Amino acid sequence: MADNRKRRRTEPSVGEELPFKNKLKPDSVILQILKDFSASSSSSSSSSKTLTLQDLTLPFTCREVADLSLASVRSNIESLNLRIAHSILSGLGFSFDVPSRSAANQHYVAELDRIVLKDKSSLRPFANISTVRKATITARILELIHQLCLKGIHVTKRDLFYTDVKLFQDQLQSDAVLDDVACMLSCTRSSLNVVAAEKGVVVGRLVFSDDGDMIDCTKMGMGGKAIPPNIDRVGDMQSDALFILLVEKDAAYMRLAEDRFYNRFPCIIVTAKGQPDVATRLFLRKMKTDLKLPVLALVDSDPYGLKILSVYGCGSKNMSYDSSNLTTPDIKWLGVRPSDLDKYKIPEQCRLPMTEQDIKTGKDMLEEDFVKKNPGWVEELSLMVKTKQKAEIQALSTFGFQYLSEVYLPLKLQQKDWL
Amino acid sequence: MADNRKRRRTEPSVGEELPFKNKLKPDSVILQILKDFSASSSSSSSSSKTLTLQDLTLPFTCREVADLSLASVRSNIESLNLRIAHSILSGLGFSFDVPSRSAANQHYVAELDRIVLKDKSSLRPFANISTVRKATITARILELIHQLCLKGIHVTKRDLFYTDVKLFQDQLQSDAVLDDVACMLSCTRSSLNVVAAEKGVVVGRLVFSDDGDMIDCTKMGMGGKAIPPNIDRVGDMQSDALFILLVEKDAAYMRLAEDRFYNRFPCIIVTAKGQPDVATRLFLRKMKTDLKLPVLALVDSDPYGLKILSVYGCGSKNMSYDSSNLTTPDIKWLGVRPSDLDKYKIPEQCRLPMTEQDIKTGKDMLEEDFVKKNPGWVEELSLMVKTKQKAEIQALSTFGFQYLSEVYLPLKLQQKDWL
Repeated sequence: MADNRKRRRTEPSVGEELPFKNKLKPDSVILQILKDFSASSSSSSSSSKTLTLQDLTLPFTCREVADLSLASVRSNIESLNLRIAHSILSGLGFSFDVPSRSAANQHYVAELDRIVLKDKSSLRPFANISTVRKATITARILELIHQLCLKGIHVTKRDLFYTDVKLFQDQLQSDAVLDDVACMLSCTRSSLNVVAAEKGVVVGRLVFSDDGDMIDCTKMGMGGKAIPPNIDRVGDMQSDALFILLVEKDAAYMRLAEDRFYNRFPCIIVTAKGQPDVATRLFLRKMKTDLKLPVLALVDSDPYGLKILSVYGCGSKNMSYDSSNLTTPDIKWLGVRPSDLDKYKIPEQCRLPMTEQDIKTGKDMLEEDFVKKNPGWVEELSLMVKTKQKAEIQALSTFGFQYLSEVYLPLKLQQKDWL
Repeated sequence: MADNRKRRRTEPSVGEELPFKNKLKPDSVILQILKDFSASSSSSSSSSKTLTLQDLTLPFTCREVADLSLASVRSNIESLNLRIAHSILSGLGFSFDVPSRSAANQHYVAELDRIVLKDKSSLRPFANISTVRKATITARILELIHQLCLKGIHVTKRDLFYTDVKLFQDQLQSDAVLDDVACMLSCTRSSLNVVAAEKGVVVGRLVFSDDGDMIDCTKMGMGGKAIPPNIDRVGDMQSDALFILLVEKDAAYMRLAEDRFYNRFPCIIVTAKGQPDVATRLFLRKMKTDLKLPVLALVDSDPYGLKILSVYGCGSKNMSYDSSNLTTPDIKWLGVRPSDLDKYKIPEQCRLPMTEQDIKTGKDMLEEDFVKKNPGWVEELSLMVKTKQKAEIQALSTFGFQYLSEVYLPLKLQQKDWL
């Protein structure tokens, strides 16, 4: 097997005439560039790391949640119940005080580079015909979460829904109240031990523990390790990587995993296979925080590629109350960028015309604070909207299946060509 | 961490009044039942294993493909090219002889319990206006596969498409010809080193090698190991499991992984997270073949659950030429079966009414040979269509989050309640 791998590396590559292959310097030069980058990134992240909501003087109060231990969640629920009992015994009935998660209560904070929730909330009284159902659902979800705390197990939203279908009626209702409960208890949804389906995989220079088992991601073959659904059982992260490579899609991930790209340029390769799921976002954030590594993103050159980058970077509006725990600041846009299409001479037939919807999404994104604060991104996105052309990462295969791992990425790294 | 786990197991379960919990015998009794089952299954599978297409006297000839080494694929392509060159030099021009993959050329063989391809084929001449494009695409795909053989790498269908967008125009065209080429060369699509995206995960009592790395699936935490996209780099399977538990969906998989069900009842747990993908089907078949273990399926109680079971069991029509390599014979339907709904007293509100489409799909499936040959399945499916009720695996959560792993599955195993 080892021979086999070596054979693949030493065999003369088919296309010596590959565009820009002659610009590549020896790996040692590129490695030095990466080491400098990694060092500067880790020092800057440790100095800027301290900036939190508390450090800012914002004209309004913000609500943020934190990862809480099971014991704290349990005691928060019990305190809440005591307050309710007290209110009932005082003859006042009871209401839940539920933070608003609506768009009007959301705000992008440039200093933190993420969306946060303001502090508006509304009462959900039990003794009111319009809110009695929701109040009852809220009480029931609190009870179920309390059970999870006692048992110390994790369940999915779907499991939660099925414990009381008669009351919840449909899953949208139990899901929505679940987010309400997280806000009410000031904890992340993962602290409630309710997890989403896992989708992501990781491979490369990372060792970590998953529920007590030590996992060495350099020894995970081509398939990689499935990212665990419950981040609270993940720990002991160790790595000699110089950066994290965040990949939008499966196909590019597979190419890099098979070529063991992480052995040539020490890195950790991670993908959520499309839309970022909560587990992958938490895992990425934890890697960045624990290992202090820069994150470089490889996404399609279309508005959705940038959108995916933005979800990792500054959060989705739906879960803005949890943005500080779910987002990974300072992700660099490595490629494939609109300007790469001409620069790397991607043939016309490998580019795709943008649809009306694509162009609209692109224009909308130009108005987003998250994009606007990075002039390089504005320039790239404007170019995309102007040329009305998009391209997938896979378009690079036009120069050969391994062009991505053998020329494009090494050259990008060598030229520090990220934004 | 270890303490934590122990605590969860010894803590008194909340619902001692759980339906049927009192019927459960000690684990040692259930384990003995499983050992007997596993032994009988492995002896019957080794005796019946020899039945192949060649053993049958069918009224027509069938076409089957096999896993070929890269060297064989390469030499098959080279021989084909020589024949073409000869034909051209003889002044005859050239045609590809392409096996038909249409429904009319497919046949369910009850003795083998899978769909096979008959031997109809059609000519694809280069010098004909109606076929010149397809003939050219075929030649190009053959050339690209030949390159993959030389390099010994794997690519996705998407990569393949992008190597010549101008010719292929859209991916449906290169995908279709890729299947043609596999049939022409009498090899599986995975032998061509073109792989699909990975989706499945595996956890439990299995050790195997993935691209040279040894993977111990009991030490993969809760996340499990991502099933490798390329089965040809998977090997050295070892296991002390008594059965393989094939799970339709994520949520049930997660429950069993977190509860480390495989340590209580030695098994391997595998899921494709919904629709079975080629990589998971190949992996399941390899486990069954190499380890000679019985396979028990846990799917939703709806027509799609049974459909998914049928794809693992007898193949999809789309890839019937490859059915002998992709299918896993003799999968038992463990649950959730329509008769379980009443038997386990699943409350009405956790059952869902079947839609018109569901009922139609159910009735159509009653006509399928694959279902008809198993009277127990016909009975179950008829019951489903009659009651017009379906239910997800998750419906069992109505009795508590761990009812699945602590009562339902152990009792099913104890009662050998599979069909």
